[in-house]
Formats: sequence, C-alpha cells, structure tokens
Amino acid sequence: MLENATPLQYGDVEQAAARIDGAAHRTPVLTSRTADAAVDPAGGATLFFKCENFQRMGAFKFRGAYNAIARFTEEQRRAGVLTYSSGNHAQAIALSARLAGIRAAIIMPNDAPALKVAATREYGGEVIFYDRYTENREEIGRRLAQERGMTLIPPYDHPDVIAGQGTAAKELFDDVGELDVLLVPLGGGGLLAGSALSASALSPNCKVIGVEPEAGNDGQQSLRTGRIVDIGVPQTIADGAQTSHLGQHNFEVIRRLVDDIVTVSDDQLVATMKFFAERMKMVVEPTGCLAAAAALQGVYPVAGKKVGILISGGNVDLARFAKLVA
Amino acid sequence: MLENATPLQYGDVEQAAARIDGAAHRTPVLTSRTADAAVDPAGGATLFFKCENFQRMGAFKFRGAYNAIARFTEEQRRAGVLTYSSGNHAQAIALSARLAGIRAAIIMPNDAPALKVAATREYGGEVIFYDRYTENREEIGRRLAQERGMTLIPPYDHPDVIAGQGTAAKELFDDVGELDVLLVPLGGGGLLAGSALSASALSPNCKVIGVEPEAGNDGQQSLRTGRIVDIGVPQTIADGAQTSHLGQHNFEVIRRLVDDIVTVSDDQLVATMKFFAERMKMVVEPTGCLAAAAALQGVYPVAGKKVGILISGGNVDLARFAKLVA
Repeated sequence: MLENATPLQYGDVEQAAARIDGAAHRTPVLTSRTADAAVDPAGGATLFFKCENFQRMGAFKFRGAYNAIARFTEEQRRAGVLTYSSGNHAQAIALSARLAGIRAAIIMPNDAPALKVAATREYGGEVIFYDRYTENREEIGRRLAQERGMTLIPPYDHPDVIAGQGTAAKELFDDVGELDVLLVPLGGGGLLAGSALSASALSPNCKVIGVEPEAGNDGQQSLRTGRIVDIGVPQTIADGAQTSHLGQHNFEVIRRLVDDIVTVSDDQLVATMKFFAERMKMVVEPTGCLAAAAALQGVYPVAGKKVGILISGGNVDLARFAKLVA
Repeated sequence: MLENATPLQYGDVEQAAARIDGAAHRTPVLTSRTADAAVDPAGGATLFFKCENFQRMGAFKFRGAYNAIARFTEEQRRAGVLTYSSGNHAQAIALSARLAGIRAAIIMPNDAPALKVAATREYGGEVIFYDRYTENREEIGRRLAQERGMTLIPPYDHPDVIAGQGTAAKELFDDVGELDVLLVPLGGGGLLAGSALSASALSPNCKVIGVEPEAGNDGQQSLRTGRIVDIGVPQTIADGAQTSHLGQHNFEVIRRLVDDIVTVSDDQLVATMKFFAERMKMVVEPTGCLAAAAALQGVYPVAGKKVGILISGGNVDLARFAKLVA
C-alpha cells in the first residue's frame, strides 16, 4: 500500500494554509482558568482550546475539503466532486463545492443527524442515502465515481484532506508557541495526521496524542500492533468517530509521528459537553469533546504542562444537545 | 444630580483598559456568513460579534468590577467591597475581590438564577438575599455599607464601572476598525455608556444604539423624554436587564452620546438564543442576545452596514437553556 506515494510533510500543510487563507475562518484559541484548575489544582497547567466548532459549517472538515477541491483541474471541476460522510465532511464538501462553483454529490448514512443532512442540502449538495450497518460506503462511492466521472474526495484517507486538516494545529502553534502535549480527536485520522505534521515542524518536542471513543479504539489497536485494525462500526455518541478503521495515508503519518492514542467513554464525553456549555459557553458536539475529555476527566495526565486541545466541531441537533446537557 | 462631577471621557476607558490588562480576557470577535446573509441577502452587511460570554465569569461585568476595585485605597481594601446585583455583577465583584485579596458581600434577589448564586459563593462572596418585588436593594446596600464600612460598588451607576465596561467596545474597534453601527444591550446602562465613550473616540461616525427588552423600555422612554424614567421591575426573560431605571452617571453619558434605544420581545430573544446555539455554537444568556436580536430579527435595519454587536454574557442555567432552545 502507498508504495509509490511521497510521504506527507509539513510543507503540504503550509501549502494548504495558503490555499484556504481568506476562505476558512482563523478560529480563536480560548483559555479557561476553571479548566486549568480542574486538571492541575497546583496551578501549573495551561490548556489552549483551538475552537474549530467556530469554523465555517461548524467543524475543521472545511479545511481539508476546501484544500482538496482547490487543487481540482478544469476537467475535474466540470464533473464535480463526490464523497461519503457521516456528517461534517459532507457539509464541508457541499460548501466548498458551492464556493468553487462545482456540483457535489454526498453519500450519507440514513441515520445521520438531521441537522447535518439539512445543512448539506442547504449548501446545495445532492444527498444519496445508504445503510451504514449493511452497506459499504466506499464501494458505493467508487461505483458512483465511475458512473458519473466525479472525483471522489473521501472524508479522511486523502493527502490533500490530511494537509488541509493540519492547518488548524498550525494556527494553534503560530498563536501560542510550542506545547508539551497536543490532544486531538480521532476517527479516520485526518485531523490527527495533519496535526502531527504541524507539530513535527512547529513544536518538535510536543507529544501528539490521539483520543478516540472507548467503543471505537481501532486507532489505538492499530498504533500498538503496527497495522490497520478494522473493528466494524462502533456504537458511540461520538458520531464523527464512528469509523471502523484508519485511512492508509493517515496511518502512514500516525505511526510515524503520533506518540500514543487513548480512549474516553461516552459518559466522559457528556460530562465534557456540560463543562463546555456551562463554563466555557460553547456548544461542542460529542466527537468535538474527545480531546478535552482526555484532559478534564484525567485520562491523560497534564499537570504542569502546556497543552493544546483541538475541539473538532459543534454540529449537534439542538434537541439532542439539550437532552444531553440538561 | 452629578452637578460637581467631571463628565466621563474616553480617557477613563483607556485608563481602565490598562488596569484590567492581564486580568481580563481579551475576548474574540466572531463573524458568521449565515448571520450576514440573514440581515442582508444582497451580501452588503458584515456583523462583528464581540463575545463577552467568553469573558472571565461569563460576562462583561468583570471589566467594570475589576476596574473599580483596582482603584481602592488601602483603607477601602481592609473593609472590603459590597454590592447588589441580579447576577453577573455579583460574580464579577466576588471574583475581582478574591483576585484583590479583599472581602466581598453581595445583596442578591432571592429569585436570582441558581447558577449565578452558586458561582458567586464559589468565588468566595458572602450572599445576602432580598425580595426584589417588595424591598429596595439600593437602600439595603446603603445601610450595610454604613454598618460594615464596606465600599459600595453598584452594578452600573458608578464612573469606574462604566469606564471598565467601555473596554469591551474599545477592543472591538481596535480589532476591526470603525463601524457604521454598534448595538449594545441595555439594563442599567453601564455597558451602553462605556461603549458610547469608546465609539465617540474610536469611531466618531458610528451610530450607537441601545437595545432593551420590550417589557423594560425605561431606557428608551428616558432617552426620548430627557429624564430618567422609572418603570418598576420589568417581567422579561432577560434577567440581566430587569432594571427599573438607568443610573445617573449612565444617563449623563447616554443622553450625550447614544443615538437611539430600540426594544425586542422575549420571543425574539429566544429565536436569537437558538441561532447562536445552532449556527454559531455559542451559549448566550437571554440578556446577551438583546443586541443581536435587534439586527437578526429586523428591529434595527443594518443592510449594507458594518455592524458591531456586543454579546454581554453567557450565564444561564443549563436546564433553562436546554428548555429554551430545544
């Protein structure tokens, strides 16, 4: 696999940063003395929250999708873009395609959050449903790409997507300098791989730690065994991390540059959602809480450390959000 | 009234900015293309949201309280600080007093949101309850100040409080330059008066517009009649704007520098809370939605304009928030 590919480098992230400049929001980095005190009562820790829930369409996914489409040839632009996604990448492709003036078709699971389906359509994307428990979205994607001549941009297993996602961590390091630890949510590994590329250049001594749901620890198993492990669709409230295996391009970067992968429970995600809403006044979707949960719930010890935390997104049905935090 | 006082000037805000530097958060300014399109489908408007819901203790009130206490003499510090507040100013005084290492006593209505009472006590403030429908908090405050020798810092009618609150708009202008319109929530008039001082120096052609709840339009009546009108305690979900009249120091600035005061309904506040949660991923308390509601609900036309919107705070019980937005 990937035998002939040039390994991704930080330079790819830098190029992506130039492409998305002006189109993507430069999201704020927030701090919270309450959070700092929660992880280190002695006062030695500082957490820096990179808020991709404030990114366009509500998640970091816009970065990778926009970067990938920005590299299309005229011929690719004429046929349009195709993807499959459990949600945020769908909106990201739909919005990026609209901005580029090209067509987009999105293969989505029929149990995707209503908010994400509606937003994808609102951005002008054509939605094609499938059953994620019985059908293979990658197969459907390949078939439709062939039939329609559209270019498939998968949600994570693509060099341009990974490079684009890495721009969030780049901005974080540019804003706050080097860090001791960077905690990153992990589904298919696009954000984690991209973040690791940025850390390797901008903060070489920073530990890069992936965080995934307990029920979906395929990433942890993969990193520890040295090969991509497929666990089937995990049952977790972190719908953005309901991936069954890492991408190949992602794993190549992750095994090279990521220090460890830890897991958190759904209960820990809910407690973190409440913390964000009550103390930091932010709406964060369950998947977006993964990295913060690892620090705030004591899964990964950060006392005395300068810690970056990537909040990946904020797209959660309000009714569901209300039920979870009330 | 105020015959011998020197009128407040922008220089007072500049001095306050120097005093709170390092203690207060410099809060982010967010933009939303969805909001821009909602107020001007032709694409001519840009809204800049100054997010004081991300301020320490969750509201702009920290700025004024910290500024006032920072000016205490040694004798004042020994006796401590006293205040009355429906909520956010209470927490602001309690936290600022703790940071200054002095005692704080807070007179609060017995129907204040539980979250605000708990947070005030958490910051080390002594809470003294009163009935806001039958008792006068200003009288109780004067009596306790005399008995205990503590310095009363009221929630809005105080030059140092007004100057401190003005630092939020100062930061907004410093970040985004001059504006056509600045929309500011209005209760007692601390934030509005302070913002008007900043606008007068940093963006002299900017229209400064106060926004208050329909049920509590004492500010509008006062500006239009030229004297402070007292309307009794208004019934509105905007608990931070349940003031019955403007402060004297506040009115002196407002009549001099504010262009108009408009009102929004509780329903419009709820619609705006939903918009913030769903599209901008933020928790904003009802009072914090006042200024945005005026723009987003079409109360104050902003098509074609560059508009500043002050979000005053995000302190709302999660259960109440969940009920309102779900």
